[in-house]
Amino acid sequence: MSRILYSLRGADGTAPFSPHCWKVVLALRHKGLDFEERPVGFTDIPKLENGFSKTVPILRDGDRLISDSFAIAIYLEQTYPDRPSLFSGEGGLATARFVEAWALSTLHPAVTRIAVKHIHDMLSPVDQAYFRESREARLGATLEEVVTGREAEIAAFPEKCTPIRNMLKFQPFIGGDRPLFADYIVFGAFQWAALTGNTGLLDPNDPVANWFERCLEFVEQG
Amino acid sequence: MSRILYSLRGADGTAPFSPHCWKVVLALRHKGLDFEERPVGFTDIPKLENGFSKTVPILRDGDRLISDSFAIAIYLEQTYPDRPSLFSGEGGLATARFVEAWALSTLHPAVTRIAVKHIHDMLSPVDQAYFRESREARLGATLEEVVTGREAEIAAFPEKCTPIRNMLKFQPFIGGDRPLFADYIVFGAFQWAALTGNTGLLDPNDPVANWFERCLEFVEQG
Repeated sequence: MSRILYSLRGADGTAPFSPHCWKVVLALRHKGLDFEERPVGFTDIPKLENGFSKTVPILRDGDRLISDSFAIAIYLEQTYPDRPSLFSGEGGLATARFVEAWALSTLHPAVTRIAVKHIHDMLSPVDQAYFRESREARLGATLEEVVTGREAEIAAFPEKCTPIRNMLKFQPFIGGDRPLFADYIVFGAFQWAALTGNTGLLDPNDPVANWFERCLEFVEQG
Repeated sequence: MSRILYSLRGADGTAPFSPHCWKVVLALRHKGLDFEERPVGFTDIPKLENGFSKTVPILRDGDRLISDSFAIAIYLEQTYPDRPSLFSGEGGLATARFVEAWALSTLHPAVTRIAVKHIHDMLSPVDQAYFRESREARLGATLEEVVTGREAEIAAFPEKCTPIRNMLKFQPFIGGDRPLFADYIVFGAFQWAALTGNTGLLDPNDPVANWFERCLEFVEQG
């Protein structure tokens, strides 16, 4: 196997949970490309591939190394043009940048505040120390202080999904009749929440919850 | 001239201000298509083209009539495929629906609350009566009550533009190197605010303000 995806996990035996790594998992499945996933802990990342990147995902494809989920999606699109498209044209690629900017500025801060203590508790001790220090500096508060706002964040979460919900009145995926990378960008945030034990953020009858299930089905059916 | 765009204006002599009509103005200019704009008052709309649509924009193109800004953009793309593309592929068209859903759920409610009294005051007396009744029912408050929250809405406005601002770190337009209909969808909301006397919502050095100016330049240069 020459294709390796380095992703992120908690302590031994926990599922890979990084939203950015999930985007790449779905992009690879969308393209129908085999890969071996190698989940590592936070503090292992600097040791990967001679310190190639400070963050995962990192994709090794033969002798090529690429980091950053969006850059990997562009690489896959350019390298495997005969496989199903991740963007369906230049306009789809450009506009996916807006979807990414929206997800990172709207969904990710919310999921961070909902899940940060759960994530901490999933990690190995050495990763816990790194995670606490870096996230508390970023958030300007201790993890325990952030947790006090968790219920309010959960209550506010469905309203933040309004643009997806309203888009779904016109079509089943952001990509139209079938998912594109723009869908996987948003999917990553929901999967991140779910795999760190934060399920039930949406009512099961919410069209957004149904869209999430459709994305899962699409990529599982290959 | 066989191409007519019915749009919206206030009292005689005021500029057309509807965000949805501006999207179509820019789409037509983008395609390099001549048209005659016929701005009407709110209460004139039901009389247009034998009551074809309850809302503007309405485009008459020869013997074809189309309403709804997104439907008009799709019509123009399909009818004039040899002109510059408004979507740059199927993915761009589909993802523009997400941009529309975001703009309608995030920017439009904000601009409504900032501009609603200004808009009312621009209208002819008969349109003022219609506008007050329909908007007060929709907003659940009198126009005067809504105005009391105007300064707070203005203060909160730049933060609502964060997804555009962050996208602009990667590319000059939502459409990538040049604007697409997705840009015009967002542009419409800013132009609506500006033409109803609500300038200065963004710092002139804000990248989002610079993007707005670039959109204007692009379509003015044809």
